[in-house]
Amino acid sequence: MAKKKTIGVLTGGGDCPGLNAVIRAVVKSSFNLGWKVIGIQKGFEGLMDPSSAKELRSHDIAGILTMGGTILGTTNRGNPFEYSVKKGGKPVIVDKSDDAVKGFKKLGLDALVCIGGDGTLKIAKRLKDKGVPIVGVPKTIDNDLSATVITFGFDTAVSTATDAIDKLHSTAESHQRVMVVELMGRYAGWITLNSGIAGGADVILIPEIPFSVEKVCEKVEDRYRTKKNFCIVVVAEGAKPAGGGLFTKDAKSEGRQEVLLGGIGDWLAKEITKKTGRESRSLVLGHLQRGGHPTTFDRLTATRFGAAAVRAIKERKYGVMVALRPPDVVFVPLEEAVGKMKSVPVDSDEITAAKELGISFGD
Amino acid sequence: MAKKKTIGVLTGGGDCPGLNAVIRAVVKSSFNLGWKVIGIQKGFEGLMDPSSAKELRSHDIAGILTMGGTILGTTNRGNPFEYSVKKGGKPVIVDKSDDAVKGFKKLGLDALVCIGGDGTLKIAKRLKDKGVPIVGVPKTIDNDLSATVITFGFDTAVSTATDAIDKLHSTAESHQRVMVVELMGRYAGWITLNSGIAGGADVILIPEIPFSVEKVCEKVEDRYRTKKNFCIVVVAEGAKPAGGGLFTKDAKSEGRQEVLLGGIGDWLAKEITKKTGRESRSLVLGHLQRGGHPTTFDRLTATRFGAAAVRAIKERKYGVMVALRPPDVVFVPLEEAVGKMKSVPVDSDEITAAKELGISFGD
Amino acid sequence: MAKKKTIGVLTGGGDCPGLNAVIRAVVKSSFNLGWKVIGIQKGFEGLMDPSSAKELRSHDIAGILTMGGTILGTTNRGNPFEYSVKKGGKPVIVDKSDDAVKGFKKLGLDALVCIGGDGTLKIAKRLKDKGVPIVGVPKTIDNDLSATVITFGFDTAVSTATDAIDKLHSTAESHQRVMVVELMGRYAGWITLNSGIAGGADVILIPEIPFSVEKVCEKVEDRYRTKKNFCIVVVAEGAKPAGGGLFTKDAKSEGRQEVLLGGIGDWLAKEITKKTGRESRSLVLGHLQRGGHPTTFDRLTATRFGAAAVRAIKERKYGVMVALRPPDVVFVPLEEAVGKMKSVPVDSDEITAAKELGISFGD
Amino acid sequence: MAKKKTIGVLTGGGDCPGLNAVIRAVVKSSFNLGWKVIGIQKGFEGLMDPSSAKELRSHDIAGILTMGGTILGTTNRGNPFEYSVKKGGKPVIVDKSDDAVKGFKKLGLDALVCIGGDGTLKIAKRLKDKGVPIVGVPKTIDNDLSATVITFGFDTAVSTATDAIDKLHSTAESHQRVMVVELMGRYAGWITLNSGIAGGADVILIPEIPFSVEKVCEKVEDRYRTKKNFCIVVVAEGAKPAGGGLFTKDAKSEGRQEVLLGGIGDWLAKEITKKTGRESRSLVLGHLQRGGHPTTFDRLTATRFGAAAVRAIKERKYGVMVALRPPDVVFVPLEEAVGKMKSVPVDSDEITAAKELGISFGD
Repeated sequence: MAKKKTIGVLTGGGDCPGLNAVIRAVVKSSFNLGWKVIGIQKGFEGLMDPSSAKELRSHDIAGILTMGGTILGTTNRGNPFEYSVKKGGKPVIVDKSDDAVKGFKKLGLDALVCIGGDGTLKIAKRLKDKGVPIVGVPKTIDNDLSATVITFGFDTAVSTATDAIDKLHSTAESHQRVMVVELMGRYAGWITLNSGIAGGADVILIPEIPFSVEKVCEKVEDRYRTKKNFCIVVVAEGAKPAGGGLFTKDAKSEGRQEVLLGGIGDWLAKEITKKTGRESRSLVLGHLQRGGHPTTFDRLTATRFGAAAVRAIKERKYGVMVALRPPDVVFVPLEEAVGKMKSVPVDSDEITAAKELGISFGD
Repeated sequence: MAKKKTIGVLTGGGDCPGLNAVIRAVVKSSFNLGWKVIGIQKGFEGLMDPSSAKELRSHDIAGILTMGGTILGTTNRGNPFEYSVKKGGKPVIVDKSDDAVKGFKKLGLDALVCIGGDGTLKIAKRLKDKGVPIVGVPKTIDNDLSATVITFGFDTAVSTATDAIDKLHSTAESHQRVMVVELMGRYAGWITLNSGIAGGADVILIPEIPFSVEKVCEKVEDRYRTKKNFCIVVVAEGAKPAGGGLFTKDAKSEGRQEVLLGGIGDWLAKEITKKTGRESRSLVLGHLQRGGHPTTFDRLTATRFGAAAVRAIKERKYGVMVALRPPDVVFVPLEEAVGKMKSVPVDSDEITAAKELGISFGD
Repeated sequence: MAKKKTIGVLTGGGDCPGLNAVIRAVVKSSFNLGWKVIGIQKGFEGLMDPSSAKELRSHDIAGILTMGGTILGTTNRGNPFEYSVKKGGKPVIVDKSDDAVKGFKKLGLDALVCIGGDGTLKIAKRLKDKGVPIVGVPKTIDNDLSATVITFGFDTAVSTATDAIDKLHSTAESHQRVMVVELMGRYAGWITLNSGIAGGADVILIPEIPFSVEKVCEKVEDRYRTKKNFCIVVVAEGAKPAGGGLFTKDAKSEGRQEVLLGGIGDWLAKEITKKTGRESRSLVLGHLQRGGHPTTFDRLTATRFGAAAVRAIKERKYGVMVALRPPDVVFVPLEEAVGKMKSVPVDSDEITAAKELGISFGD
Repeated sequence: MAKKKTIGVLTGGGDCPGLNAVIRAVVKSSFNLGWKVIGIQKGFEGLMDPSSAKELRSHDIAGILTMGGTILGTTNRGNPFEYSVKKGGKPVIVDKSDDAVKGFKKLGLDALVCIGGDGTLKIAKRLKDKGVPIVGVPKTIDNDLSATVITFGFDTAVSTATDAIDKLHSTAESHQRVMVVELMGRYAGWITLNSGIAGGADVILIPEIPFSVEKVCEKVEDRYRTKKNFCIVVVAEGAKPAGGGLFTKDAKSEGRQEVLLGGIGDWLAKEITKKTGRESRSLVLGHLQRGGHPTTFDRLTATRFGAAAVRAIKERKYGVMVALRPPDVVFVPLEEAVGKMKSVPVDSDEITAAKELGISFGD
């Protein structure tokens, strides 16, 4: 009897609602074809050292459709091509990609599904160049991948952010306060823009539109002058005052701004109080945006992506990333898919509509 | 001083999450242009008899972004062109559309925003033909309007349906039961298809794919044979067994199937029990799908539509419906927009993916 | 080395949010004492035939705190003392309780935790009389057990019911309709009373207060007369019109009224339409009330009960049921705990308050 | 015709879910008695200067049952007995309580309902001593009032906190991280204890039990040693390391610890990373805990309290606070009710149960 076709699946990068739904769809679609699926633990770490990998069976995926997180574990570290090891007590970067290829072979895999963001997909592309038959599934709560119209995780993150704005709304209104909410999104303003409009924010500050604190304060004052008596400001972690200077260092560090360094939200709330005299409070929503049950939309998209990844393997289309081009799911070559980020076009319909409603972008 | 530009807004047809978000956006965008907005009560009824109409002010729309329903009231009745009145104790259909035009003039309106489904938009088109400067905003929880890729209300309805499936899941599993959930959608299977995939249903029955009870029972038995020991079946109110006969009358009546007549869900649960001996339960989700706070996506889309409707008026584009063609909102002539329904293509990516996962459509 | 102390755990009766939280607490508390826990499948069925029982390990309870349902399965059937078997094609009732005792011994158990409602606890009491060291944990969404002030499941059921009322509210108001919602609770009105008040219902009908359709219709008319123009009616499945007659048969059958027979909700909506001419709709919430993630309160109570059950075993207090007497959890002898149901006192503070607000009970 | 009995209602102190539900119940109960209700804006500020007070009518309270916040506005400032005014540019404390009494009379009130926390109720007590017929309604998300077993707001705050823990859970597990969540509660650990147990936290740190960082780190290491590979730590804003020293200044300031000063959560996450080498993240949940729709329980309790306040006035029981002594709502003299805070008993059943489950309190 011929060996069953066997595929591997791994998740890389930051946690994202819908990862488990993709894994489930990969497994169910594979089972439906009579294939076997090996779950690789903690992203590429588990490919380089496959000792922790194990076959995924029916009961492993029972009930995970609605669960946040990933049953395979994930990590932001462990790039096989630039692996950090200690040598003589000092960290040295070495290329361990051959170990990843070896791991793939050792597990007896016919193909590999890599679910992850731009970083993970870049590694997938390089592994494919080394001959690994690979299919990528895009993941990002930030909606910053240009090759897919949208992917799972974003709708959940926006919903969580909107829910937070809703919760702060009543307190802002009751206490006649300014509430500043700092949201995720890295270099892109998608989460902030969408949740800001959906949550009825008065000011929306995103990296794509450098803002002026004076303009923000004008809007705040305008709200009190017209007896609205409170103001909701949402600000993306990557937003910056026009002229800049202030956050240069954070911008360089590639990481998220740490609360204790004083994120943009805390800073802005203080500036508003200083300049307007209005009582202001800030909140950094942080990791809540990565967690929780995926929304219906994210579960649906994740499921479609998982099925499409197996379809690509069945059709021997390797080196591609599945992508949503509504109403279709298509296969995009990995080299075209990676490294192209998507920021909010400043003339997008969302921004146009928001400005027509009177929302300020601080510009 | 010149008279302020004044526009009217009304909502027609069935309740839908996001109506208030559109109204709010219409009012805020109008205020931003220095215009005045008149709220017309209970759809076209309130246009024919404008005595209940009243100006919408800032406090009227405070807090309504997140609220289901419509502050203007709505109705499924009251078509001015085919108005039912009693004459000599018997209902007679008369044309009262001149009253609607008179109402429009009496209120001193420069333009009218009509928010509603296909029925409302058909009336809007005919009023436009009578010279009323009108802009339509599409509304449907059923996602069955072909002129817009999607509209508000659908995402909320799908979320509510998915949440119900989630809730029934644990009981089905704990009691090793078959659970049949009957969902809305009229002649289209969108709500059932999307929530079925997102909720992890095992069988999805939609009007677009006539089903065989035998095939459904095969899937049920297969679940127990493979030790899953429970089965979730979602069925659209308009789904029909292949060969039909059974529900011909309901299909003709244009209305939703009444619970007491025995909807498709109750009937199917009984058939499954009869044929498989498995304990089955059914639930008709009904009006819950029309209510509740709109999801983030629906609030965003509704807000964009409200802003776009005012934009159309500003640009003197009358006789159009705003429509989502991602990433844009466009204006579609009403004559092109109405009367074209959208059912689920049987070769859509969603259905393809669902089948790859092993979900049965009873065909 | 001495054999590890080993306890068994089973769940019986209808599904209830929080069951898994109890199981988790039983297992964690046992592990903390160095004990072993055996999970018994499908209530007493799994005790009589212990072949499906299996040890519960750490990974079996990972993540179940927030999950509805029970990982052990449950059933409304399988009373060992009155077991239905087929003899010569006909169902005969036999006493198989010796098999249950044998199962207990075969599994090498030192004690047994039985989580269930009044039916399950009655069986537990009889097994204890046969020498099985047993501890009961009360479970009911209906809040109808008199020996504990409250138990888990009820708060979740009330929340689900209230959420449904909220969802129907906007549709009722937008369409100026009467909405009738039929809720669970068997012979008690707790779910209906609490969710009715919390959901802002105008009429609350419970088994404890026989209602007059005329009084209900008076309240409906009063709502329209005072321009509220909609009305929310919540009705317990066990509510009955004064004078009765109508639902005698259903009341006798001990089971829930079946939708197709015409539940009280459907019947009442039709009566209201007939008598007032107002458009009415009804909804039977049904099994949704048994499902879903347990609320915070239910998770907390379930966890406390699970810990207390193990504590009782540690203290060799058998034949008891854990019970909440705030702020304490106490042990009540099973013979005192079972068979005593708790209905809503008609002079309770909730009812007094509701009446002061102007809510009608149809009396 | 005799003047209608007229009562006033105000809300004081921090925002709290359920305030609007109390206001609604006060108004509905009053209407039912034929009384009139005056809404006083922004707590006692609005009593001292009653120009902004206005009659509450039916439409003012429509839909507010489910809304967070207070339609009357609130403030943490404005104690009439210790009112801060500027004299010669410097803040001076003056007694303006006579103005409050004058305001009461000017508004023609027969009685006043004051909804607020301990601070508000203390002022109410002093106004009652000056002859104002007053009834208090206790409000606190912190559950720290000893005179009532529980009050509205707390259940919502605990639910919000638990939901946050749930969301962080999947990320902690997927990334194998330590997650530290800082929660509200002032000097009491109720929110942290209840949400910690309900959310499945591994470490719960509350003000009532001084903790040792070493013990916390031991628990963290134990989680990784037993392959759980992640750890959830919840810490009350008022929790302190045994020995103290560290947070003396914050503790003195009576206010909540400011994020930028480095709250206990941020500090603890850093300590854990330093001592265990495990990747840790912290989140300050902050004002989210004060907002949002009240839970079913909080709506019910708030409604009962509002009805009871009017009942007290009807029975001419002044100078009392309504209080929940399940199943009753009773009237407690204000002098007995205020100034007595309720912290978590260290031998409470919740803590006992939590320790039995293996949860660490860092002691």
